[in-house]
Amino acid sequence: MFQLDTRIERDSILLTKLPLCQLRLQNDQRYPWLVLVPEAVDEHGQTVTEVHDLSERDASQLLKESNAVAEVLKKVTGCKKINIANLGNVVEQLHWHIVARNENDITWPGPIWGVGNAIPWDEKKRHQLVVSLLESLSQKGFKPSGN
Amino acid sequence: MFQLDTRIERDSILLTKLPLCQLRLQNDQRYPWLVLVPEAVDEHGQTVTEVHDLSERDASQLLKESNAVAEVLKKVTGCKKINIANLGNVVEQLHWHIVARNENDITWPGPIWGVGNAIPWDEKKRHQLVVSLLESLSQKGFKPSGN
Repeated sequence: MFQLDTRIERDSILLTKLPLCQLRLQNDQRYPWLVLVPEAVDEHGQTVTEVHDLSERDASQLLKESNAVAEVLKKVTGCKKINIANLGNVVEQLHWHIVARNENDITWPGPIWGVGNAIPWDEKKRHQLVVSLLESLSQKGFKPSGN
Repeated sequence: MFQLDTRIERDSILLTKLPLCQLRLQNDQRYPWLVLVPEAVDEHGQTVTEVHDLSERDASQLLKESNAVAEVLKKVTGCKKINIANLGNVVEQLHWHIVARNENDITWPGPIWGVGNAIPWDEKKRHQLVVSLLESLSQKGFKPSGN
């Protein structure tokens, strides 16, 4: 059975459940940084770690959700570039980063991972971002659902 | 018309052309590091920069090629984890990194991008890796083709 990794749970906030993935916001206001976590397990009930170990159907669905989320994140933030990655060198459970990058962010043009410390979101700013994201996702046919 | 970015051309070696993408080896023997470059342009003939700007068909094909290449790279290298990313903060042309990571590589568990300088491949080691990769890809139905 799928069980969310405790570090992902600690470091990010559930925004909504999409058909395959939990859509989560990394609690770090240095970047608008979303994480998709497919609620998928392998044939032994173990967590999946590699994208290529997803079933063909789940991989297609991850791509579909990733593209919708990336498009919405770019539109809502007006960022210069979306960064997408599955690293998983520390937290093995398959998770897919979708990050809005700008030329004035603190690690531009380098990658964001492993640099400095997270700055938890200011509640008001977070709320504004989340409302805009979920509204735009809803317009693309992804209706928000609860935890 | 698709035209390969000159920096991608300088820093990597064409291994084969897959149905959508050029499969290239980054010329840096610190990591077995492959790059997929979709030979795709948008409706204005301009290079595509974001995954979500690919047509649905091309995005699916990128995923298919990525999964095949990632699986083969993991098998051939015996690596611990595959890292996948589209960053594109410096080189805008859409390119998709697929990297074999190990606990003893120099930046583990951090990301590889923007750290230190590339060490060009020793020709013999490169040849061995490339032959193994192309053979395994061929077994998965991707026949090598020329430049």
